[in-house]
Amino acid sequence: MKTAEQEKITQAQETCRIPKQLALFERASKVIPGGIYGHIAPLMSIPGVFPYYTDRAKGCHYWDVDGNEYIDYMCAFGPMVLGYHHPKVDEAAMKQAALADCTNHPGPVMVELAEYMVDMVSSADWVLLVKNGNDATSYATKVARAHTGRKKIVLCQGHYHGVAAWCTGPCHAGIVPEDHTNIIRIPWNDLDAFRKVVAENKGQIAGFMATPYHHPTFIDQVMPSEGYWKGIRETCDKEGIVLMVDDVRSGFRLNQRGSDAHFGFKADLICFGKAMGNCYPISACAGREEFRIAASKVFHTGSYWFAAVAMAASLACLKEMRDGGVVEKMNRMGKMLGDGLKDAARSHGLEVIITGPPAIPYMRFANETDLFRMQFFCAEVVKRGSFLHPHHNWFMCAAHEEADIRQTLGHADDAFKAVKEKFGS
Amino acid sequence: MKTAEQEKITQAQETCRIPKQLALFERASKVIPGGIYGHIAPLMSIPGVFPYYTDRAKGCHYWDVDGNEYIDYMCAFGPMVLGYHHPKVDEAAMKQAALADCTNHPGPVMVELAEYMVDMVSSADWVLLVKNGNDATSYATKVARAHTGRKKIVLCQGHYHGVAAWCTGPCHAGIVPEDHTNIIRIPWNDLDAFRKVVAENKGQIAGFMATPYHHPTFIDQVMPSEGYWKGIRETCDKEGIVLMVDDVRSGFRLNQRGSDAHFGFKADLICFGKAMGNCYPISACAGREEFRIAASKVFHTGSYWFAAVAMAASLACLKEMRDGGVVEKMNRMGKMLGDGLKDAARSHGLEVIITGPPAIPYMRFANETDLFRMQFFCAEVVKRGSFLHPHHNWFMCAAHEEADIRQTLGHADDAFKAVKEKFGS
Repeated sequence: MKTAEQEKITQAQETCRIPKQLALFERASKVIPGGIYGHIAPLMSIPGVFPYYTDRAKGCHYWDVDGNEYIDYMCAFGPMVLGYHHPKVDEAAMKQAALADCTNHPGPVMVELAEYMVDMVSSADWVLLVKNGNDATSYATKVARAHTGRKKIVLCQGHYHGVAAWCTGPCHAGIVPEDHTNIIRIPWNDLDAFRKVVAENKGQIAGFMATPYHHPTFIDQVMPSEGYWKGIRETCDKEGIVLMVDDVRSGFRLNQRGSDAHFGFKADLICFGKAMGNCYPISACAGREEFRIAASKVFHTGSYWFAAVAMAASLACLKEMRDGGVVEKMNRMGKMLGDGLKDAARSHGLEVIITGPPAIPYMRFANETDLFRMQFFCAEVVKRGSFLHPHHNWFMCAAHEEADIRQTLGHADDAFKAVKEKFGS
Repeated sequence: MKTAEQEKITQAQETCRIPKQLALFERASKVIPGGIYGHIAPLMSIPGVFPYYTDRAKGCHYWDVDGNEYIDYMCAFGPMVLGYHHPKVDEAAMKQAALADCTNHPGPVMVELAEYMVDMVSSADWVLLVKNGNDATSYATKVARAHTGRKKIVLCQGHYHGVAAWCTGPCHAGIVPEDHTNIIRIPWNDLDAFRKVVAENKGQIAGFMATPYHHPTFIDQVMPSEGYWKGIRETCDKEGIVLMVDDVRSGFRLNQRGSDAHFGFKADLICFGKAMGNCYPISACAGREEFRIAASKVFHTGSYWFAAVAMAASLACLKEMRDGGVVEKMNRMGKMLGDGLKDAARSHGLEVIITGPPAIPYMRFANETDLFRMQFFCAEVVKRGSFLHPHHNWFMCAAHEEADIRQTLGHADDAFKAVKEKFGS
């Protein structure tokens, strides 16, 4: 006979929507630190509701290992921009794969991709192709130091540039204070703070790196203030500071020429990743003519960086993005989603705040200080078949159609109703 | 009418074996810093002879863009271990690709791969999967610091662990002295030197990282002295120092259980890459039980790290490696090549020195202090259809057959003859 505790477990398993995935996760926890690590770790999601393992994906939909289907608003946390299994991208990748991928030398497609990016991207006179976004941001800091002969790098508080020690917060395990000897952090959107550190570190600052707008986790996104980037650009020019834009998360979702173009300025060095390859592993640092010599002096390489398949995929992705009105569509769909969510919330007597670009929205409840409402809301939406994250910005893609948004708004309507019932306001 | 100079250029173009690739490189040099960067940069090869761009590859053969065919002894600088387009690996990758690659979550294959590695690799009680080899080595240093609460990392002079600033030599552009505040470099194979820095930095050293044997560029490889690793292991145990082995280059070519197993000791943390995925982009840090908690505390993530295709490829690659006598074959073929090269040299009155494991050999001329003979020799071999590198270790793969080696030894015989004629000895 079962004990009360065993009965509870059996009941939980019966009502669980992800039993196969929990079994997989239990196996994983024995052979992988934390079971699933990094930005997709379970502690970053809603335990027992959020899926853990993907079975298959197509367009803006995917299915978890337990057969649950989702309309995807995280898009692999950014890399998916045209839809999973986009025919043109996959065809280009497969065509290249049939020839060669990672060999002793790059494929000719490296030249074609670099030429295409130089033509397409506002601040690109040259481009260096890498794997991780963090490979690009780390490279940029080296180029800035090589170019200026200076050491210090200014970053904005709460901006994420990857997991390399130089850009990881001091609170994280394994990071030591000396990792940040030459790093100065200032508040986002604070031109005076920048001018102050520049004055205090006259002739010592190699570069300033920031994301084109502020996209933290857990809190609202903040667009650049009027005149912010113009002021940064002017100060950098005046003081010989290299202006580096980390466009890894936002690149090609605000503007196909890069997010600096979107905000009306030119970066010296600009880093891309995610959207540039529609899920194929590729990132890049592009830069202006002035920095070409320093860029070619820095030794930067990796075992898989010259692999041709991801480059072929990226070239096809960028071509589609340029020709297909992709940025416009993502922002239109994002606006439809955002407006719809606000309306749906209002119809239940609730208010939600949505910040950031329509293609990369962040939502929270107006009256909330913790994330309980948002977690509950996302759980209810996820159960119904749309994947929304409670504390990370979402990503739109060009495969989202009005029918998808309408379906998600239906899920959201039910979820807002449940929030109202549970929380009262 | 042509000037003498123009005539010379025309003549050079006519006799050039890589005209299409030089034209591509000229285009590249306008849009990519240095045209081709990193470890495959032209300055790392023999200009005008070495191919620049791969058209296609199959087994241990590949063809450059000008249609020249090569038997490959660089194997993509390591990642190719079973042969390009290995049917089992590609089939596993394609099967996974048809389902999903990079999505919001890993695929179930992440669990299977981690379980397989824990079972196969001597020092693996857990494994964390990443992209670049350098992602793994950087992670290992963080785990060591998180585990010990100490800051300093001891490395060996001339050991390559990637391009992150902490492990890049101070002579490189963009590297500042503060990048190495907590790094101590000691000579390879010098147990006394290690014991000395440990005594001088009592209680301050988080970890020691080294490659399992010394595989520098430009000079001979050096295997560990008798008792070296045993002594390192004992000192680390006594002083609570984390022993990290960077097996990215050598992993799975010396021993399918890891190179620490090959040399009769156990690493605390061991990093793999290259051979583990047969050219698909994947690397890993594996570790022992004791370090699991620290390993799970370190925040380490990347946009493409959970992509399922490379994991499926890696699982198929490791299975093939374990079942197929792959390590034995690579070393047997490497020995046949090495013995044959020595004999061929001797038959022309020359002497070559070959160091390192047979599957990862490094060759030089015994009487040479510069690399002129070696460069000339490799150029002559490359022209005849075998790809050998003049100053980097070579890599054998399981697709090398005796017929390939015999063909290459024929190329080498001609090349040694040419060396003898040109240099006299």
